[in-house]
Amino acid sequence: MIACLSSNLPNLHSTPTAPGQTTSEPDSKPQARKLKSSPQLNRWSRARAVRSGRKLDRLGHRSPQSSVNFKVRDRDGVDLEPERISDGEDNVEAMEGKSIYMVSDGTGWTAEHAVNAALGQFEHCLVDRNCAVNTHLFSGLQQFCQIDDVEQLMVIIKQAAKDGAMLVYTLADPSMAESAKKACELWGIPSTDVLGPITEAIASHLGVSPSGLPRGAPGRNFPLSEEYFRRIEAIEFTIKQDDGALPQNLQKADIILSGVSRTGKTPLSIYLAQKGYKVANVPIVMGVELPKSLFQVDPEKVFGLTINPLVLQSIRKARARSLGFRDEIRSNYSEMDYVREELEFAGRIFAQNPVWPVIEVTGKAIEETAAVVLRLYHDRKHKCSMPRISKRY
Amino acid sequence: MIACLSSNLPNLHSTPTAPGQTTSEPDSKPQARKLKSSPQLNRWSRARAVRSGRKLDRLGHRSPQSSVNFKVRDRDGVDLEPERISDGEDNVEAMEGKSIYMVSDGTGWTAEHAVNAALGQFEHCLVDRNCAVNTHLFSGLQQFCQIDDVEQLMVIIKQAAKDGAMLVYTLADPSMAESAKKACELWGIPSTDVLGPITEAIASHLGVSPSGLPRGAPGRNFPLSEEYFRRIEAIEFTIKQDDGALPQNLQKADIILSGVSRTGKTPLSIYLAQKGYKVANVPIVMGVELPKSLFQVDPEKVFGLTINPLVLQSIRKARARSLGFRDEIRSNYSEMDYVREELEFAGRIFAQNPVWPVIEVTGKAIEETAAVVLRLYHDRKHKCSMPRISKRY
Repeated sequence: MIACLSSNLPNLHSTPTAPGQTTSEPDSKPQARKLKSSPQLNRWSRARAVRSGRKLDRLGHRSPQSSVNFKVRDRDGVDLEPERISDGEDNVEAMEGKSIYMVSDGTGWTAEHAVNAALGQFEHCLVDRNCAVNTHLFSGLQQFCQIDDVEQLMVIIKQAAKDGAMLVYTLADPSMAESAKKACELWGIPSTDVLGPITEAIASHLGVSPSGLPRGAPGRNFPLSEEYFRRIEAIEFTIKQDDGALPQNLQKADIILSGVSRTGKTPLSIYLAQKGYKVANVPIVMGVELPKSLFQVDPEKVFGLTINPLVLQSIRKARARSLGFRDEIRSNYSEMDYVREELEFAGRIFAQNPVWPVIEVTGKAIEETAAVVLRLYHDRKHKCSMPRISKRY
Repeated sequence: MIACLSSNLPNLHSTPTAPGQTTSEPDSKPQARKLKSSPQLNRWSRARAVRSGRKLDRLGHRSPQSSVNFKVRDRDGVDLEPERISDGEDNVEAMEGKSIYMVSDGTGWTAEHAVNAALGQFEHCLVDRNCAVNTHLFSGLQQFCQIDDVEQLMVIIKQAAKDGAMLVYTLADPSMAESAKKACELWGIPSTDVLGPITEAIASHLGVSPSGLPRGAPGRNFPLSEEYFRRIEAIEFTIKQDDGALPQNLQKADIILSGVSRTGKTPLSIYLAQKGYKVANVPIVMGVELPKSLFQVDPEKVFGLTINPLVLQSIRKARARSLGFRDEIRSNYSEMDYVREELEFAGRIFAQNPVWPVIEVTGKAIEETAAVVLRLYHDRKHKCSMPRISKRY
């Protein structure tokens, strides 16, 4: 379900489906009539009202039985007038499942990553839909110059309160983080600061103050570092080497992945490339000879991938359906006997190359297989008693 | 700098350079003589000693002037004997810069992501090397069956104490998180729990207890969801469409990126593909006609990329160097006049297609440009007053 903020647009409900995401019709009752003016105007009028001592009643149709009070001091120290929000007919609470709002003055990817990881702890109820969660990421607050960023933050938090949502924030600007914290406390919204505690701990550890500048802020330009060029080179190399292409380049790869079709070589290669590793992947197809160069490179950088035959068959069936069975030559591609034989064929190749670790990918997300590959890779390089991935900043 | 744990291997210092990472020689004085037996044996002997009331003095060469006391209750409730660690001649403190240890019983990517984001707040001292930071990621604790995971955790924390490091942890298992917290408190190590607070907040919000199972734990298999297949399909599509390939498929893309060479189309495409979007990128080359299909697709999904000519020239120079000037046809590739003209050529195409947003990528990391593209993309789809990215779990 996609619902929109009610502050600026009068008829704002429009819910085309994001690519592949399951969405459903939102409560289509208009919310806009509650806030007729722009947030900027609201803020000004509130600030004026506060100064003049006048009482405000902008929300003409307050629902007294379910209201929330809040009082927030804005950046300039002006107390924002206490308001009440109705959760009557025009709320979004009615939407199925609980909502998590994520707010960032940067890209928002840290908040998204943390929420994703934490939601992994609730798979037992998410998978069978006993609980459903809607996440809404609001990012780049400082990049919308038309209205003040604290005001935007308050609009989002107000909507979170209406929506019965919790708030997760990564706000590099300390005054923004403080505003978010206070507003959530006052509105009774559960909130978590993802970036603050770790930034404070690092600041104290390094004895250096954080810049307080979010990503993309003026004055915090991304430097074109070696690391940046290395990562781009790794991505470009990895794309060119996909699916066994250019076997003459295998010696240039940091990591070579080998396995039968649908063991996840391509997405794994790309994931590792994003982390700066040049990856080549070499498919194993029954009856097709592997490139000679695969056996001439340092075997310590080759990783075999294997998978449970039943799971592989179901993945291949889905794949064959999506391909529309156009590939005549491989019509037996998802047949159980063929699947088993091909995995055994791969198994014999792995057995002949005992230095290659063979990684079981069944039931593993790409990120998990990547973690296993990189632990082994760094372990082999550094011969540590416990694998670690070390970096220098 | 790469340093290894001292617990298992007697001569464990070996520091080949990770791909492209700047590393330097570690303090090569052997640390292994301090801990001669395996951690499992140490633990047993300590537990036995505790039960018998015997005093332990395993560390024969304690440095009394700089010692740390700790006492940790292990999982079975056995008090581990207070120990002292020297930070004398054999410590790793001497290595340049401060260390951050990251420990996870899952993949460790959440800890890594959070630390990366937080370090972004210290770019002002990292870039000019006024402060240097070494990070060490220890992940998948539960996957090493040869020794107990709490024991491993203690070995790592002990090393962190020696190393003068701080600890960042994401431990899904609550007893592990508790052990880490206590050990850090007792050893005086600054520590941050990245996953705990957000997981607790979500648990309370959903009214559901977290599983406590880290990624990759038995019983927490990754389900082959629609989302999983969609993401893989997006990655495969995006690779096939790279660099203007298969223009007949442009209508199948969710997002189309267009811009001159070295505006970051490929890494941006791949980053977006990892998030589940099918991306095609179409290069703009002066004098080369763009595919007709680019002007036949929904213009709302096309994004132009542009960049400052001086920055583009320096990127192209680096590129030309790495290519060894092999590309004769494009010998003027990094010449300033050509760079300017090509950007103007692209600018005219963008002007003729006013629906395409033109994104300035100068000084932006891939993640930042991706955030801008996705905000615009979702904004156009959902016509919200403030762009948001919504998902359903």
